[in-house]
Amino acid sequence: MPKISTKGLQMPDSPIRKLAPFATAAKKAGKRVLHLNIGQPDIETPQVALDAVRGMDRTVIEYSPSEGFASYRQGLAAYYAGVGVDVSPEQIMVTTGGSEALIFAFQACLEPGDEVIIPEPFYANYNGFAQTAGVKVVPVRARIEDGFALPSVEKIAAVITPRTRAMLICNPGNPTGYVYSEEELQSIRSLALKHDLYLFADEVYREFCYGEEPPRSVMTLEGLDEHVVLIDSVSKRYSMCGARVGALVTRNAAVRGACMKFAMARLSPPTLGQIAGEAALATPSSYFTDVVSRYVARRDALVEGLQAIDGVVCTSPGGAFYCVVRLPIDSSDVFCQWMLEHFDLDGDTVMMAPASGFYATQGAGQDEVRIAYVLEEPLIRRATQVLAKGLAAYLVRND
Amino acid sequence: MPKISTKGLQMPDSPIRKLAPFATAAKKAGKRVLHLNIGQPDIETPQVALDAVRGMDRTVIEYSPSEGFASYRQGLAAYYAGVGVDVSPEQIMVTTGGSEALIFAFQACLEPGDEVIIPEPFYANYNGFAQTAGVKVVPVRARIEDGFALPSVEKIAAVITPRTRAMLICNPGNPTGYVYSEEELQSIRSLALKHDLYLFADEVYREFCYGEEPPRSVMTLEGLDEHVVLIDSVSKRYSMCGARVGALVTRNAAVRGACMKFAMARLSPPTLGQIAGEAALATPSSYFTDVVSRYVARRDALVEGLQAIDGVVCTSPGGAFYCVVRLPIDSSDVFCQWMLEHFDLDGDTVMMAPASGFYATQGAGQDEVRIAYVLEEPLIRRATQVLAKGLAAYLVRND
Repeated sequence: MPKISTKGLQMPDSPIRKLAPFATAAKKAGKRVLHLNIGQPDIETPQVALDAVRGMDRTVIEYSPSEGFASYRQGLAAYYAGVGVDVSPEQIMVTTGGSEALIFAFQACLEPGDEVIIPEPFYANYNGFAQTAGVKVVPVRARIEDGFALPSVEKIAAVITPRTRAMLICNPGNPTGYVYSEEELQSIRSLALKHDLYLFADEVYREFCYGEEPPRSVMTLEGLDEHVVLIDSVSKRYSMCGARVGALVTRNAAVRGACMKFAMARLSPPTLGQIAGEAALATPSSYFTDVVSRYVARRDALVEGLQAIDGVVCTSPGGAFYCVVRLPIDSSDVFCQWMLEHFDLDGDTVMMAPASGFYATQGAGQDEVRIAYVLEEPLIRRATQVLAKGLAAYLVRND
Repeated sequence: MPKISTKGLQMPDSPIRKLAPFATAAKKAGKRVLHLNIGQPDIETPQVALDAVRGMDRTVIEYSPSEGFASYRQGLAAYYAGVGVDVSPEQIMVTTGGSEALIFAFQACLEPGDEVIIPEPFYANYNGFAQTAGVKVVPVRARIEDGFALPSVEKIAAVITPRTRAMLICNPGNPTGYVYSEEELQSIRSLALKHDLYLFADEVYREFCYGEEPPRSVMTLEGLDEHVVLIDSVSKRYSMCGARVGALVTRNAAVRGACMKFAMARLSPPTLGQIAGEAALATPSSYFTDVVSRYVARRDALVEGLQAIDGVVCTSPGGAFYCVVRLPIDSSDVFCQWMLEHFDLDGDTVMMAPASGFYATQGAGQDEVRIAYVLEEPLIRRATQVLAKGLAAYLVRND
């Protein structure tokens, strides 16, 4: 029997995969599991996108060009103009989700053994993409005490080595919901320029921002045309994670050229998803107004519920639909599993993502969980109630 | 400006990418370009699949499970039973096209620096997938004089080194159309067992087989449960290349476990494509009877037309919809470009894929082209006529 590769063995597991069987068992036992663990929004996909799929008039579901349909890329350029980003269709490559955009960026820009700095906690799959490309993730720690603000320039500069080639940010952030300030973006800009680093920016939560000011794209930072690679996706924006359509946007022609070779090897991004994505560009602004107000109500309900629990630390996230919460426990892996296995409040329990999977630093985040507020407000209120009682029971348990 | 990676620089270019601008220019100049260069069939997608997309009743285009929808995997298991392959739904992982299945297989099974033996000429993108995984392709040469039969066991054994970990075959073959005999499959089986090699088998052209006997899947070879990884796709079978839905099938649980980690990192295969793929399983057998008879007529027209040209060597392919043809020229790269730039017969010219891109051996295939017979029979006849005249003109040209 041939051996499997060490690369496969070393691929990190999903933070919630271990918990999945316990959620299944809880459901089988008749419990209702309130899922605060996932990033699949419950919001409906815009009607224009659904209509486009249902009205598809093709009789052959053909390949699209490897870089995506020309009409879609033109539409995307107009979308970016609308959010203050000046790019041409040629600077936009359609990808199979934001995931593929990030894999292309890593493979086109970084050598195996190169280092990429990522503020932690960060989206757990970044580890998998780095592992796939043979790239080393170097975390810089953002702390709940600071509301997960960007670590200081000095702290970031301190981890730069001769192998450091890039920095990766997610703004608004998954899992923290943090939105970088103008000052923080300028710090990131200075670091990229001074150390000649690529700046990969995952901005898939752009529309989910709850402050007065819309967040600024790194594509608008001056002097970074050759450094910035924007990672984007329709998944969260239009609540169509299953379309598997994203984008890689950069003004760096050499990076585009290399990405194009990877894109041609995999032939094309999904045709049906692109039909949905292109149609979704016509989503009325009322859709987003409505969605944002629902998320604000959910967030406020969540934060209010959490802050009422003794020993729980959480700040109010400014964007996305996640927050990282500190609980008065030793191991959120153990606690999250215990909630599914041993607790219910009148039949209800809660599933959360242990935060340790969102840290690259060994042992970090053990007393934290990520909570996604992707349920309607009444369910969010119920979930915080269940969590409060569960936590109280857990702290006095004897098992 | 940061440097781009050597990995990106070394990614091979598509065999036809260089020609694309010349095809565009020919069209602009008013020529009709008969495309014999591509693998996008002109056949219509089965009605059941189009209907399923148009009738989609989801209101949220959600992620599917990372391994694909359970109902689709059950349907696929039934499909495989129908072609004599006994696998459970758990042994099937849905992927984003056959491309992703092969990338997962390479990454899960092989270390960077490992070697995979591939009979050449082979599907050009195998080079790109190998480059992505850091794997070295070791070709063994199949020859047009032998009708592209499998090279002898001795010749294959001769290239095995301590780093050889796998063999990759495509059956029926792209670009040759060759279908392996029972004897050849047994040779491959012996090699895999004797040298403990993974056997990756790309069987995406399974239904396009024009002999008396249906081709046998490597999944039915005895004693290879831990060695075989089957690569499959809906792209050609149902003429829906743009769905981006494929499958990785293996009875090796460790390989499945590693692939699952890569699958979870990219979240899920396309939801809409899976809807089309699952519905396509109900395609009536009359669809394939019709398609196969059309391809046989096209193939026969092509072979007849080619064999009538002085100095052209071609064998009648037994499957898929390609063949590799030897022309009486020095460089098919130069000739294929010349046909687009400088030749037309009453406004018609022909685009073919130079075969050099399908060989890993430097300098091989310079006098060969790959022809895809993905046009209706009258156009195939016209194309061979244009090629005959073009070739005659090329051989006496003065430019």
